[in-house]
Amino acid sequence: MRVGIIGAGSIGLLFAAYLSRLFDVTVYTRSQEQANEIDLHGISLLNRMDRTVAVVKAVPITDWQGSDELTIVAVKQYQLFSIIERLKQTPTMPENLLFLQNGMGHLKLLNDLKGTNLYVGSVEHGALRENLYTVRHNGAGTTNVAVYKGDSGFLQWLTGVVSKVFPMTYQEEYLAMLEKKLIANALINPLTAILQVQNGVLVDNPFYYKILQNLFCEISAILNLKQPEEYWGQVIKICQQTADNRSSMLKDIEANRLTEVDAILGYLLEEADRKGITSPQLVTLYYLIKGKESQGER
Amino acid sequence: MRVGIIGAGSIGLLFAAYLSRLFDVTVYTRSQEQANEIDLHGISLLNRMDRTVAVVKAVPITDWQGSDELTIVAVKQYQLFSIIERLKQTPTMPENLLFLQNGMGHLKLLNDLKGTNLYVGSVEHGALRENLYTVRHNGAGTTNVAVYKGDSGFLQWLTGVVSKVFPMTYQEEYLAMLEKKLIANALINPLTAILQVQNGVLVDNPFYYKILQNLFCEISAILNLKQPEEYWGQVIKICQQTADNRSSMLKDIEANRLTEVDAILGYLLEEADRKGITSPQLVTLYYLIKGKESQGER
Repeated sequence: MRVGIIGAGSIGLLFAAYLSRLFDVTVYTRSQEQANEIDLHGISLLNRMDRTVAVVKAVPITDWQGSDELTIVAVKQYQLFSIIERLKQTPTMPENLLFLQNGMGHLKLLNDLKGTNLYVGSVEHGALRENLYTVRHNGAGTTNVAVYKGDSGFLQWLTGVVSKVFPMTYQEEYLAMLEKKLIANALINPLTAILQVQNGVLVDNPFYYKILQNLFCEISAILNLKQPEEYWGQVIKICQQTADNRSSMLKDIEANRLTEVDAILGYLLEEADRKGITSPQLVTLYYLIKGKESQGER
Repeated sequence: MRVGIIGAGSIGLLFAAYLSRLFDVTVYTRSQEQANEIDLHGISLLNRMDRTVAVVKAVPITDWQGSDELTIVAVKQYQLFSIIERLKQTPTMPENLLFLQNGMGHLKLLNDLKGTNLYVGSVEHGALRENLYTVRHNGAGTTNVAVYKGDSGFLQWLTGVVSKVFPMTYQEEYLAMLEKKLIANALINPLTAILQVQNGVLVDNPFYYKILQNLFCEISAILNLKQPEEYWGQVIKICQQTADNRSSMLKDIEANRLTEVDAILGYLLEEADRKGITSPQLVTLYYLIKGKESQGER
């Protein structure tokens, strides 16, 4: 099967490296330079144990035709808009599209895409791109996938096949799946980025724990969670299990990159606004991150 | 006149150095070591222009008798409790007491002191203690003083005399005077400490400015401000005038010292609680600082 992966950041490279063991993978890059580098070196995948090289095709996104049987979109949420525009203009709409963005802000963009199977995924792997063709797989987790629109047959088959080389878990409910990830991201990412601490500090420090609780109450009201304890328990578990990790938003802030704050807190604030709910603590957190982002730009 | 100054931090040393030009000053220190150093070297006062040495008496606070005609209490708010206990146990209660603490949390402690003139001051000088007997006078401002309880005659006289060597401004209303300082401290100190930025960044960065506005709304409601615009304008002016300064709370956090967050935000949160007002953004800020303090302790 031909698999296209749009986006060659850490997640794009990670998926390309593993899936190339099963499928004929093409990576679509933003720059010609990166395509050249990947063509030359392959994708270098670093594990705790070893380094392997995956051979894939790499072409700039401008050459994308949409002819792969499965297309995985692995760009950041804030880069998705231009990708969706490109998808809409393609004569042959890809049959199966899997979106791996954080947050839930991208769902409304997907409604513009017609006549195709749309899947969404939530990635629980830790990965860091070390150079244009090298990715380090830090934390092995799974990728939860669910049907957003269309038929589940292909996705269930895919999950079964992929799982042999790279954990993938089929989920029935895309909403619950994405909400879980969103809540964890909304609680852990901005706070760790503002405080410049590892994930575990949020539960070890009693004052930060208190902030987590207060923020969770606001989020629970916005999403109208039926079983908040379950979601809360999951957040605490993630903080404990990834205690030594630095969150992606912390890394983005440190590297003066744009963060995914709009996909995460921005989405929640829009939802709050739509429902007429005030969420002053999320607002404060949002502006703290936006402010830090704009400081980094200078 | 004999003037006693309790506390030999930056503000205590600054006042001792200037007032020694007019009065017979004794500094009461926490440690015998600091008393010895001050006895040996005098107080070294560094200005932008020059260095002068002030000769004062220095004794440990344990030797304090309360016999000075004016006693200035220049310890941090969180050190005040033990000083007040000592004052209450003194046979000869000092006649004139001037308290220079930040915030307003200390006012309720003053009500326990009987039969004496109580004054409060709000210091607008920038000062940094460089070693046990050296203080750098960074930003020349004034000291606002007002009567908290008792007679105004002495304080008005004092203001007139002191002003010749060290700016001092008599204020009619202690409440408005302290509120102004409290509001500025509550807005500027915690945010700069969390973000690790200079004061000016808060008004230059549009996202941080937005946080300032939101926080100000909460504070304005808690204090039931009649003319909020005036207070708001003053905060913005301070940020602009001290744009390159690092706030005292930022310096405290960086040096792993306790901050004055309880005197500042703690007081506001108690007031909010007493009045049944919710102030979620101040709560978040409070826990962020408390968390940072407790991280520093480790």
